[in-house]
Amino acid sequence: ATNPEFISLAGGLPAESSFPMQKLLDATSSVLKGPGALQYSITEGEPELRQWIANHLGAEITQILVTNGAQQAMDLVTRTLIRPGDTVVVEAPTYLGALQIFDLAQASIVTIDQTPVGPNLKQLESAFQQQPVLFYAVPDFHNPTGCCWPENTRREVIALAKKYKVTIMEDAPYRELRYSGTTLPSLYELAPEQVCHVGSFSKIAAPGLRLGYLCTGKDLLMDISLVKQATDLHSSTLCQRFLLACLQEPYYSDHLDELRDEYRRRRDTLVKTLQYYLGDKVYFSIPDGGMFLWLTLAKGKTDRLADACLDNNIAIVPGSVFYPEETSKARDKMRLNFTHLGPTLLTEGVKRLAAVIDTL
Amino acid sequence: ATNPEFISLAGGLPAESSFPMQKLLDATSSVLKGPGALQYSITEGEPELRQWIANHLGAEITQILVTNGAQQAMDLVTRTLIRPGDTVVVEAPTYLGALQIFDLAQASIVTIDQTPVGPNLKQLESAFQQQPVLFYAVPDFHNPTGCCWPENTRREVIALAKKYKVTIMEDAPYRELRYSGTTLPSLYELAPEQVCHVGSFSKIAAPGLRLGYLCTGKDLLMDISLVKQATDLHSSTLCQRFLLACLQEPYYSDHLDELRDEYRRRRDTLVKTLQYYLGDKVYFSIPDGGMFLWLTLAKGKTDRLADACLDNNIAIVPGSVFYPEETSKARDKMRLNFTHLGPTLLTEGVKRLAAVIDTL
Repeated sequence: ATNPEFISLAGGLPAESSFPMQKLLDATSSVLKGPGALQYSITEGEPELRQWIANHLGAEITQILVTNGAQQAMDLVTRTLIRPGDTVVVEAPTYLGALQIFDLAQASIVTIDQTPVGPNLKQLESAFQQQPVLFYAVPDFHNPTGCCWPENTRREVIALAKKYKVTIMEDAPYRELRYSGTTLPSLYELAPEQVCHVGSFSKIAAPGLRLGYLCTGKDLLMDISLVKQATDLHSSTLCQRFLLACLQEPYYSDHLDELRDEYRRRRDTLVKTLQYYLGDKVYFSIPDGGMFLWLTLAKGKTDRLADACLDNNIAIVPGSVFYPEETSKARDKMRLNFTHLGPTLLTEGVKRLAAVIDTL
Repeated sequence: ATNPEFISLAGGLPAESSFPMQKLLDATSSVLKGPGALQYSITEGEPELRQWIANHLGAEITQILVTNGAQQAMDLVTRTLIRPGDTVVVEAPTYLGALQIFDLAQASIVTIDQTPVGPNLKQLESAFQQQPVLFYAVPDFHNPTGCCWPENTRREVIALAKKYKVTIMEDAPYRELRYSGTTLPSLYELAPEQVCHVGSFSKIAAPGLRLGYLCTGKDLLMDISLVKQATDLHSSTLCQRFLLACLQEPYYSDHLDELRDEYRRRRDTLVKTLQYYLGDKVYFSIPDGGMFLWLTLAKGKTDRLADACLDNNIAIVPGSVFYPEETSKARDKMRLNFTHLGPTLLTEGVKRLAAVIDTL
């Protein structure tokens, strides 16, 4: 990947041009000179940042824990709730980083199929009957599929979670990245008492700040905060103060509008070039948000394609890697990222992909 | 603690006046404009920072993992090596944050007494005969006692660790903070293959950056890095880049010299005012480094004293809290911090402490 000729559609990186660098430069002096910016801070997070997140979610400040990205929020929830052998239910395919967390916790992972409208509810109910502790869900613009659960799916999942007393860990890093359609209620909004809601600033501000958050009931939050304290005392004070500068209005709303406009353009570029260069050799749904396009190859297998791509200085991710175990599913699927590269490189990437597909 | 009249000698905070704020202000533009400063980074840490740490320790870059402070390094080592029920040996008294980590890992904690020259070696050998996985050690300017193990203790501990095949987790946050005497070899330097060496930038740069590191054998380091990846992907790119600016020469050496001079003055101020205002009501050894003075009260118990202090707007930490279980040990001991407050407040704090002791 250090080869400058190399084009990666494989990663999950945001666009560097979108980072709020100028805002951070402008804020530096007041941030660094602010009292305590370089000192130890509170485990739960900087109060002003917690309050911003609470307002954003319609929650209380006592329900908010600031974490090192969404990844740490999920790890802390898992460390607090899961004992070795406990069952965690996940959709398949799913986000690999979540699987790493559940493996580390020695959880027993039960997978259910994802349909175009979210989890297969019949399978979900069977899985819930096995008394899992946690259901890991990405209802908004799923990684890798881009799937966004319609509202009735959300309500049915909540009903099942209540019936079987299963806690839902709602991973929502892409929730703000909607390019078309209407925002749907989060699972947390539908049933606050049933959900650990996990958010990220990596996709809407900058991953290098390493900040995300957890929102859940205040008693559980206190337990999880104790785990966070043992883990790393607190998240970087300096990064939290820098982030706060980016969350000020009207800057934040304008930044988010620009970001969505840019990513919408990139999504549309990828869609159009795929249609132009690959025609009926692949098919896909156009996601309303997020960072990924999930393609089906009309003929052939994507693990072989992925290898051939590497030989031609292009990277994609074959579908099979998004499953916890060896699988014959998704062998015709692949994930392409559309947020990291600009139109020129996206187009060049698709041309190369088309050329490789033609040789298979 | 929000009362401005309140004086705390209880915490473990570095002096805010010592933070490299001007250096960070000067470096901001080049840091923020540097490629990738706001992007995702590598789990093991920014290569330039890892190399600096490797050079500093006389190790290879492949042996270094950058972490969110020393606390995370210790948590990651523990998560990787300790299974529930495994035994961890600690000196008592000891650092509370380490105990939180071992509790979370459901380790069985075995304590051995600390003598003025380090761990009681007879007890240590008995403890090692029970096949513990880890021995947690703070050889340089121990928290809370300030004890610094002489070289022969270090060599004897290493010999025992080798004989019984016990890994040592060497926690060295105060190692650079020596104000008198000669630097002794770290346990890592004496036996690299036997030691997980944990360092911190919180005491020598700024805690708000939340950066520390682990140095150990490269195979173990790879295992631990996988745990770090699941935990939070990587430490803040931005903070690592900022820290690198502070580690440039000659700035770094000058900064460290100034810091040591200032802390030496503060230690000496505390020592002199204690001698002046408390005379033979307390006794203590003068530590060669670190952040704490460990006092023995000639008459009475420090838990009662600590409560009475709070009523008089002064805070100290009674000795008994530094033990994993209820104990009758150290009931005449207390810990005072001398790094956070300047001479005026240190002196006022001691005056108040003397007044409270007189009323008991």
